[in-house]
Amino acid sequence: MVSSPVVNTYPLSSYTFGTKEPKMEKDTSVADRLARMKVKYYMKEGMRTSVEAILLVQEHNHPHILLLQIGNTFCKLPGGRLKPGENEIEGLKRKLTSKLGANSPALVPDWQIGESVAIWWRPNFETMMYPYCPPHITKPKECKKLFLVHLSEKEYFAVPKNLKLLAVPLFELYDNVQRYGPVISTIPQQLSRFQFNMISI
Amino acid sequence: MVSSPVVNTYPLSSYTFGTKEPKMEKDTSVADRLARMKVKYYMKEGMRTSVEAILLVQEHNHPHILLLQIGNTFCKLPGGRLKPGENEIEGLKRKLTSKLGANSPALVPDWQIGESVAIWWRPNFETMMYPYCPPHITKPKECKKLFLVHLSEKEYFAVPKNLKLLAVPLFELYDNVQRYGPVISTIPQQLSRFQFNMISI
Repeated sequence: MVSSPVVNTYPLSSYTFGTKEPKMEKDTSVADRLARMKVKYYMKEGMRTSVEAILLVQEHNHPHILLLQIGNTFCKLPGGRLKPGENEIEGLKRKLTSKLGANSPALVPDWQIGESVAIWWRPNFETMMYPYCPPHITKPKECKKLFLVHLSEKEYFAVPKNLKLLAVPLFELYDNVQRYGPVISTIPQQLSRFQFNMISI
Repeated sequence: MVSSPVVNTYPLSSYTFGTKEPKMEKDTSVADRLARMKVKYYMKEGMRTSVEAILLVQEHNHPHILLLQIGNTFCKLPGGRLKPGENEIEGLKRKLTSKLGANSPALVPDWQIGESVAIWWRPNFETMMYPYCPPHITKPKECKKLFLVHLSEKEYFAVPKNLKLLAVPLFELYDNVQRYGPVISTIPQQLSRFQFNMISI
């Protein structure tokens, strides 16, 4: 038998959520973001590599994913852009601490970066991304990698005051590209090979 | 760095395709299939486990998946139902040989069953499947597991005369649920974590 990798999943109620200073978005529109990606970064540093985290909790024995909500509708995974030459794992830890870690270092989770679950490519300075580098694209503009992050039984998350942290069930994400976009809405498929060990406390 | 698993992918032209006797579908409609699943199997043996193979080739340096086409529209992955108690790997090899192996044992590929890439659940005797077991479903009716199968540089496939074997590019499958259904159309996302080593011969 090919055994499925096991992921321990703890109840949402076993985690503590506080707040911290706001983390403002650097851009006020998608067009601004793509323009900044081109002018500020791509022309100097080449392809952007970004890393994002899938943080899992359980409620009613069903896996839920932690998403950061900006305003009333837009949701994103915690993560962000690597610095040129930065290691993926170290960069994702840095971004997670910046987005969700307390100001007091002792309270910041010891982020356990696990399996790579998906890689998405942006061929042009446009919103479309694909789960492969399209044929004939020799210079993609961004590569985004999603990692499973294994949480401990207890953690403290400090959520920037301008954001909300939501625990969204897999059944809400599935087949819901209108609300969550192509990357987040197919996380259930990407996680289906894992066996979730639902732990009650 | 978390390194992506590497999959060697050989040109479609390096494989040889012959034909063999037809493999008729056991059911002439989806309703028949679901009724047979219920009466013939579920009531005797409980949940069905099926296993399916993702066989990869490359053309123009883009990964393609081998699909069996029945009639003019319906496509499926090679594979099928395990016997009660049968090992997944041995069962998938048996099914692959039945669907695509030559009658002469010496010509049958030495199937190398690799990574589990997705698991789908059928909660009821209905067509809908989900990449998780939905909450409150304690007795799912079918569990379908997809495996990557690593092909060698040269193989001989014998295709049943009533079927066609197609090499379909990832970009054709992506976001094409109307044509390929929810399982096959999200294979590009499930494979995105792999690094394809495109080999020319």
